[in-house]
Amino acid sequence: MKPITPVILCGGSGTRLWPRSRADLPKPFLPLVSEASLFEATLERCADPGLFAAPVVVAGGRHVAAVEAQVPFGGTARLIVEPSARNTAAAIALAALRLDPDAVMLVCPSDHHIADTPAFQAAAVAAATLAAQDWLVSFGIEATAPETGFGYLLRGEPIGDAGFRVSKFVEKPDAERAREFLASGHYAWNGGIFAFRAGAFLAELGMHRPAMLAAAQEAVARGHEDGARFHPDAASFGKIASESVDYAVMENTARAAMVPATMGWSDIGNWQALHAARAQDAAGNSACGPAELVECRNVLVESDGPRVSVIGLEGVIVVVDKGEVLVTSAAGAQLVGKLSGAVNQ
Amino acid sequence: MKPITPVILCGGSGTRLWPRSRADLPKPFLPLVSEASLFEATLERCADPGLFAAPVVVAGGRHVAAVEAQVPFGGTARLIVEPSARNTAAAIALAALRLDPDAVMLVCPSDHHIADTPAFQAAAVAAATLAAQDWLVSFGIEATAPETGFGYLLRGEPIGDAGFRVSKFVEKPDAERAREFLASGHYAWNGGIFAFRAGAFLAELGMHRPAMLAAAQEAVARGHEDGARFHPDAASFGKIASESVDYAVMENTARAAMVPATMGWSDIGNWQALHAARAQDAAGNSACGPAELVECRNVLVESDGPRVSVIGLEGVIVVVDKGEVLVTSAAGAQLVGKLSGAVNQ
Repeated sequence: MKPITPVILCGGSGTRLWPRSRADLPKPFLPLVSEASLFEATLERCADPGLFAAPVVVAGGRHVAAVEAQVPFGGTARLIVEPSARNTAAAIALAALRLDPDAVMLVCPSDHHIADTPAFQAAAVAAATLAAQDWLVSFGIEATAPETGFGYLLRGEPIGDAGFRVSKFVEKPDAERAREFLASGHYAWNGGIFAFRAGAFLAELGMHRPAMLAAAQEAVARGHEDGARFHPDAASFGKIASESVDYAVMENTARAAMVPATMGWSDIGNWQALHAARAQDAAGNSACGPAELVECRNVLVESDGPRVSVIGLEGVIVVVDKGEVLVTSAAGAQLVGKLSGAVNQ
Repeated sequence: MKPITPVILCGGSGTRLWPRSRADLPKPFLPLVSEASLFEATLERCADPGLFAAPVVVAGGRHVAAVEAQVPFGGTARLIVEPSARNTAAAIALAALRLDPDAVMLVCPSDHHIADTPAFQAAAVAAATLAAQDWLVSFGIEATAPETGFGYLLRGEPIGDAGFRVSKFVEKPDAERAREFLASGHYAWNGGIFAFRAGAFLAELGMHRPAMLAAAQEAVARGHEDGARFHPDAASFGKIASESVDYAVMENTARAAMVPATMGWSDIGNWQALHAARAQDAAGNSACGPAELVECRNVLVESDGPRVSVIGLEGVIVVVDKGEVLVTSAAGAQLVGKLSGAVNQ
């Protein structure tokens, strides 16, 4: 099999992980689960030269320094600097236009955690196999809870041994439908990991979003290289509508496929999700930084310096970072991005 | 009536209000309930010249600066500097020995909150009336909850109109007995506020703790004045056993009396007690310092600078002070003094 080209998207702002995640150094670039940042761990998962080509990283200008500090671009890795934020469809289009049409791209968000790298790589190979046959492939991540924060994929007919057709894309469900999806066993989470042949992706984009394709082509044609960096033209790129790749392409194509993936995945979408991904003691507590926990259960403490002393609490998250203190219930973790501190950065 | 001499004891360490209360600037000297410190508010309650003489303050050497910063000793107020901490019996003995034997002392802890000053002053007058008749008088504070953290007084026969004999001193009860005490209506809290004629106190001390009286007399005889400060002799004072005035005198005397006091009293014994004494919004929340509370009930936030954001919690206390962060349940507030940060100051 031809090497797969990892396309790493660094677009997320991670406001629900405020105050650790900040606008200037957001979630992908933080060592949240291990000593490596989520971005570094994403690159590491795609570093096997027997499977993968050099990566293409797509990031905003504000984060170029963070990207270059964490990945050695002296090699063959390349960076596409987005002039503005235009969501995933446009970001993937830029990468596809910079690659050989026959290259198989594996699109990976830079801010997810995957515990089982061999399982990830096996799914990547299966997805690349289908992508080489011009399927547009989503990773269908095994649903392990009735999550209302993710989109779902309804599994269709098998395509050989490698995967399945997607018979339906479902937007974030309410709690009752999420429980039905989980019970049925036919639904998987849409985790935002995709495999495409570059030319096939662009052909589908041209079919469903011709203006977006034209603007992306113009942005690339008028762009310029600067060492390993590529700068698309800002004016051309600015004309592109902000749309997710799901909405612009995947829900419209007749060739949507999925590969099942059971790989210890988490989008680390909020502090509660981070707590779940973390090593915990027998009482379910997890502390990073100086902390004393007394009579606590399922408590997460994160501190960048000040000592945190917690007594008699269950299911509470305490984060101290750069002069901000956050204390939230597990359920409240969903609301962190709406706090004044997170909004007014 | 002769003016009453307030004797203000500044001995408490306040470790259960860590991290706000610290060894160098403990609880009495902090503005916890209002803009005045508890010590300043204690002086203010005893400042009416129609009722009170100039106060005598008893404090350790470590806190002389804090005392003198908060009270003007250019006037007639006097300070007794304890060479070491020897509990309340010895502290009161020093003050009694420095006063005229016929002076009526009103012994007040410096770290309590009293919401109703007129009620306090009325109780002080009643107590002073009994003290002038050589009763040793405790304030019997109306019990409003089955508290297990206080000693109780069992009310005995009336003494004229001013008060009652104490028929029994009861040490901190368990929860069941505390509920019985509260239901009976015959018990009051022993809040550590006393009125004595100085000579009567010393006579009772000599009867029940002759060695303590002798050592205190020696400490005063060998002591020296330094402006408004008086320094008892350290070696003599160091020989005194640490005992509470309850244990050394009140439980032994045949002339123990009490005056009922319903005056919005709190010993501000922990963060939960402070929360109860504080002004609260409709949801029971109270915040001092920059804070954002979302979907919270009965939450107390105290911060000396960093913003504190709290989501989805009930009955939780968050204190940020001088680089320490405390998060505790209401029940856990009792354990704050045992935290590493509070113990190792």
